[in-house]
Amino acid sequence: MKKLFLLSTILLTTILFSFSQKKELTIENAVSGQWRELYPEHINGVKAYTENNFTYVKDYKQIKDLKSDKTILTLEEINSAIVETGNKEIKYFPYWNYSWLNSNQLKFTAGSNNYIYNSSTKKLDLNITLPEKADNVHYCKSNNYTAYTIDNNLYFSDAKGKIVDITSDKDKGIVNGNGYTHRQEFGITEGIFWSPNGTMLAFYRKDETMVADYPLVNITKRIAEVSNTKYPMIGEKSEEVTLGIYNLKTGKTVFADVTDFTNERYLTSITWDANSKFFYIGVLNREQNHLKLNKYEAKNGKFVKTLFEERNEKWVEPEHQLIFPKGLDNKFVWYSERDGFNHLYLYNTEGKLIRQLTKGNWLVLDFLGFDSKLKNFYIYSTKESPIEKHLYKVNFKTGKMQKLTSAAGIHNIVLSNSKKYFFDSYSNKKTPNNNLIVDSKGKTVKIVLEAKNPYTENGYELGKMSIGTIKAADGKTDLYYRLITPPNFDPNKKYPTIVYVYGGPHAQLVHNQWLGDARLWNYYMAQKGYVMFTLDNRGSANRGFEFESIIHRQCGQEEMKDQMKGIDFLKSLPYVDADRIGVHGWSYGGFMTTSLITNYPETFKVGVAGGPVIDWKYYEVMYGERYMDTPKENPEGFEKTSLLNKAKDLKGRLLMIHGYQDPVVVPQNSLDFIRSCIKDNTDIDYFLYPESEHNMRGKTRIHLMKKVTRYFDDYLK
Amino acid sequence: MKKLFLLSTILLTTILFSFSQKKELTIENAVSGQWRELYPEHINGVKAYTENNFTYVKDYKQIKDLKSDKTILTLEEINSAIVETGNKEIKYFPYWNYSWLNSNQLKFTAGSNNYIYNSSTKKLDLNITLPEKADNVHYCKSNNYTAYTIDNNLYFSDAKGKIVDITSDKDKGIVNGNGYTHRQEFGITEGIFWSPNGTMLAFYRKDETMVADYPLVNITKRIAEVSNTKYPMIGEKSEEVTLGIYNLKTGKTVFADVTDFTNERYLTSITWDANSKFFYIGVLNREQNHLKLNKYEAKNGKFVKTLFEERNEKWVEPEHQLIFPKGLDNKFVWYSERDGFNHLYLYNTEGKLIRQLTKGNWLVLDFLGFDSKLKNFYIYSTKESPIEKHLYKVNFKTGKMQKLTSAAGIHNIVLSNSKKYFFDSYSNKKTPNNNLIVDSKGKTVKIVLEAKNPYTENGYELGKMSIGTIKAADGKTDLYYRLITPPNFDPNKKYPTIVYVYGGPHAQLVHNQWLGDARLWNYYMAQKGYVMFTLDNRGSANRGFEFESIIHRQCGQEEMKDQMKGIDFLKSLPYVDADRIGVHGWSYGGFMTTSLITNYPETFKVGVAGGPVIDWKYYEVMYGERYMDTPKENPEGFEKTSLLNKAKDLKGRLLMIHGYQDPVVVPQNSLDFIRSCIKDNTDIDYFLYPESEHNMRGKTRIHLMKKVTRYFDDYLK
Repeated sequence: MKKLFLLSTILLTTILFSFSQKKELTIENAVSGQWRELYPEHINGVKAYTENNFTYVKDYKQIKDLKSDKTILTLEEINSAIVETGNKEIKYFPYWNYSWLNSNQLKFTAGSNNYIYNSSTKKLDLNITLPEKADNVHYCKSNNYTAYTIDNNLYFSDAKGKIVDITSDKDKGIVNGNGYTHRQEFGITEGIFWSPNGTMLAFYRKDETMVADYPLVNITKRIAEVSNTKYPMIGEKSEEVTLGIYNLKTGKTVFADVTDFTNERYLTSITWDANSKFFYIGVLNREQNHLKLNKYEAKNGKFVKTLFEERNEKWVEPEHQLIFPKGLDNKFVWYSERDGFNHLYLYNTEGKLIRQLTKGNWLVLDFLGFDSKLKNFYIYSTKESPIEKHLYKVNFKTGKMQKLTSAAGIHNIVLSNSKKYFFDSYSNKKTPNNNLIVDSKGKTVKIVLEAKNPYTENGYELGKMSIGTIKAADGKTDLYYRLITPPNFDPNKKYPTIVYVYGGPHAQLVHNQWLGDARLWNYYMAQKGYVMFTLDNRGSANRGFEFESIIHRQCGQEEMKDQMKGIDFLKSLPYVDADRIGVHGWSYGGFMTTSLITNYPETFKVGVAGGPVIDWKYYEVMYGERYMDTPKENPEGFEKTSLLNKAKDLKGRLLMIHGYQDPVVVPQNSLDFIRSCIKDNTDIDYFLYPESEHNMRGKTRIHLMKKVTRYFDDYLK
Repeated sequence: MKKLFLLSTILLTTILFSFSQKKELTIENAVSGQWRELYPEHINGVKAYTENNFTYVKDYKQIKDLKSDKTILTLEEINSAIVETGNKEIKYFPYWNYSWLNSNQLKFTAGSNNYIYNSSTKKLDLNITLPEKADNVHYCKSNNYTAYTIDNNLYFSDAKGKIVDITSDKDKGIVNGNGYTHRQEFGITEGIFWSPNGTMLAFYRKDETMVADYPLVNITKRIAEVSNTKYPMIGEKSEEVTLGIYNLKTGKTVFADVTDFTNERYLTSITWDANSKFFYIGVLNREQNHLKLNKYEAKNGKFVKTLFEERNEKWVEPEHQLIFPKGLDNKFVWYSERDGFNHLYLYNTEGKLIRQLTKGNWLVLDFLGFDSKLKNFYIYSTKESPIEKHLYKVNFKTGKMQKLTSAAGIHNIVLSNSKKYFFDSYSNKKTPNNNLIVDSKGKTVKIVLEAKNPYTENGYELGKMSIGTIKAADGKTDLYYRLITPPNFDPNKKYPTIVYVYGGPHAQLVHNQWLGDARLWNYYMAQKGYVMFTLDNRGSANRGFEFESIIHRQCGQEEMKDQMKGIDFLKSLPYVDADRIGVHGWSYGGFMTTSLITNYPETFKVGVAGGPVIDWKYYEVMYGERYMDTPKENPEGFEKTSLLNKAKDLKGRLLMIHGYQDPVVVPQNSLDFIRSCIKDNTDIDYFLYPESEHNMRGKTRIHLMKKVTRYFDDYLK
């Protein structure tokens, strides 16, 4: 009888186990599944079309109307026009790379080919093939020309494909028209600026001949070779940038006559006047605490006037161009953090402030445009919650705001040309991806998609994710955290816990969006039995200037205090094993990881620090000096934050990882840290990815995350 | 009653434990103690003095007669002569760096000062100060001149200190007089050769301008800097070396008119004729299978004749100069492996072979000289045992040999000038260091020192070390192994076991000498509970050409087979845990470690490979092509031995370590291996020593061996 009972228990257990057994995430899922096989159902390539409509791209083959789902164009039709010109047909319509110039003209690129397909004539209105090495490609609607760069020089192709050299600098240290100017700080992503009427072209000319080379070593050659990269280190000689204005009629270039500050000034917010007669530059001093918004004459580059200035003893950080709304003569919208939050201001082109357009203890994330009658404009803001992103309609005169997106979460919007409708794609903690068409009163016109949970659908059970707040080390500020517990969570167990950290400016890791904005690896680790925790400390993004600028001249110091509040919170949870707390982060997060494990060796048993800044003196001028000033100006700040001084305090297991080709956080950082550990006789583990830059991708990323996982499994589990 | 019994048991245990408790080696002991605090008692600076005597240096202060222990000279006396010339007195007499030119003249150097102290006049007979950067210093007894190099150029100082430039090459790729010519292969340690009469100076001129740069990165600068090193990789362009003959009278240099083979030939065995009229070069082709021993005229560098040639389809490896014994006109002794073992041959200067001087299935380790009547000569050989080194007296005419050293082990000898006495310093498994004075019949004249076991003296208990033989994979050849078991060995336990391996040519790890020739770290690991094993596989040194040349065109292949015989042996030992076998080695041993763990993944659970060759294509021309030929000549050999192809088979835990400044086995080796592991998605651990070259020293070595130890503790224990 007893034996039988035992047997049936075993059977029952087996059955129950089979029933409750879920599929397990693999490391491959953990790294890329989130964006591939486990990505929620979604709609590709939604674009505004005609006045009130949208198109999307189905299966790379059909361009369809989003409301009616009628096919507007097929790849076949487009291809027959392409083939007619003698070009090869394309296999997939590039949904990520098309736009409607008007209801008939569809602009897109396929490889080096730049096309405009005209749906009424069924012909190509533009058909040019750029050289294979063309980069920084900028099409101008007014003249049908396309400007681009090859290596360090700037060219344009006219509507018929005739190519003209604008620059011909032989010294590779002179770089023209490149979007990497000023290392992409100050919101810079482009280096080519067509005038609205298409008669002129402004472009960045970056002289980095005087900038030091950082030697990276390429080991994939028969004999390893040096590959130098220009790297202006904090406090050292920086690049010198000017703005060229190329006149298409004369074929001549003049340069903006900028004389403010020193030659190492930053030229930001490059914007053409609506009439193409003037252009504007936000001229910022190298110290980044004094901005002059200057106006220049296009025909000769001459300085006209300074419209206004902004100063701040910590920093001024212009990140946006001027916005000239159609129909609003000689007025523009300007973003500024001057009242402590990123808000919009209306100026006239003489520099007179008309009025502040938005105001409050929240910030404007993005300006999306005015409606045609200039009655309202549309913005994304954090007014609802710092961890959400909503669409607001703002009355231009009164500033009265109306939230148009209703569900909690992160909303991504495509406005129709008329601004009467918007396509809303949103997610939140519980919603993988819902897509709606909504009208300008916020009323849902059509539910386009309600994606199912791709995890439960595929038989996976993720750990429970929750978002909450704790008080910062200042005792008053709310900080948002994300906590993930293992599936089959047992509240009576003690779990090893990993803090995944970034902590630096311009980033926020916790959002009310699908998966809480966590990388799936966090859930993979939870599945392996870890509690995963992330806290956005003071210094992180979207909380206003005071919150973000706490790091000034002391990167890491206040951030650590907040992270330790996170640790206090974790320790208050009965299921967190306080003796098994680890920390992991990359880049600024690698700096934070190394800072935490060396400053709090009793708390953190294991750390994995990737691509870490180790001493700010090894970081670059643009980002680095904004936050730290120079070693000369702030010796005590560099001393205090340098992890070279902390290697001696390392007690836990620390794995440091670096891309051997990292041109962002150069390998000197981590190599000098291990040098310090050797000097101080402390234990450190290290790994290099020989071909990787600052981030690892594809197969390399799988290898990396397997390594990170294994390190925690070896020493924290 | 029971309680009391328990208590007394505890007390007794405590007492017994205290009694049996030995001091434990620390990692610091393990790394450097062997050469410092735990180095057996010894005598410093024994040198031949007068006809039949020896001196030694006591406490850096006194030069004493070894037999009588009478003081011959004091530092004070020497210093009073030094101070008299206005120079600063020296604190320590440099026992490692003195010699008797005759019974009165004592030559020594102190920093940049080169002195000859005359004990009869109590004055300095030579007092010159070389520039601080002087290197490759060569004193010539005949003219009292000193030649040396600074950077890439050659100079000499006359007896009064007047400096003359011999070369003045501005291109640093032309290197004169450097002992690093041909990367120190072929026994080359010097690049300056005074003619016996002091009228001429031969010197290597190495042109490496056409050799590729290998980029090493110095991260100790404010911004990392490239530091290129000339590195001729296998199959690529090599250096071109010529031999200059500088005439002191004319101040002119002529070059030896060498025309054999290509310009990438090797100039080896540079030797002056006794009469300074001719010199000899062993000219070896780049392929290293054809040697011509050539004679040249000193005054004009003209080729006179080829004395003889040596060829071998595997390789010819000249490693010694010609020896011209005093009183033996126009005859010289020549080392050759031509009969399969390194033996001595007598030639005349016309190239006629007079006779083979030594013969047998053993080899001559070193020729020490003739006695004054040319009746006998003295050699070290392996005749007694391949793992011992004894002194033999050989009858010049008959070849009859007499072993003069009696105790088993490794003997190091200083012959008296008369060759009637010799100072014998020996050790073996059981003898830390015994020092005797012995006469030419082998009779002990004086026991100078019988050092005590420094370990037992200091309260340490080392694990038991034994030496034995097993059969090689060929089934017939004896291979020597060394086995160390933990102290307090329990034959019923199963121990984790580490194979410490080198395996490459020109090295032999197992000797019948103190500690069995093991580094103390092996005993440290034994103390931690590991069985430590080392086997000298075929391919290693001192066993003859057939044994050593088994590696030809297939480095690692046969060596691994032998090492696996060692594994079979280990597995036959009941106390070796076959599931916990690790392997560790450096350089060629790093290559072997990586080869073994990837070729036998089921056997080796853990490996630590330091400074490893990963693909022979990344090694240098001189050593590399001797053993592997070029990738063009031997594609299948490179394919088979390349560990880049084996990264996919890695299953165990492998830690690879490299000196980031390694100019011998360049970091491209290990970096390309981890690149392969990433490609093949296999797990690998890695560490770099940012400031280290091929070997780590001092504090860095302690850090290194701590890391190696920890790795085995983490994964093998």
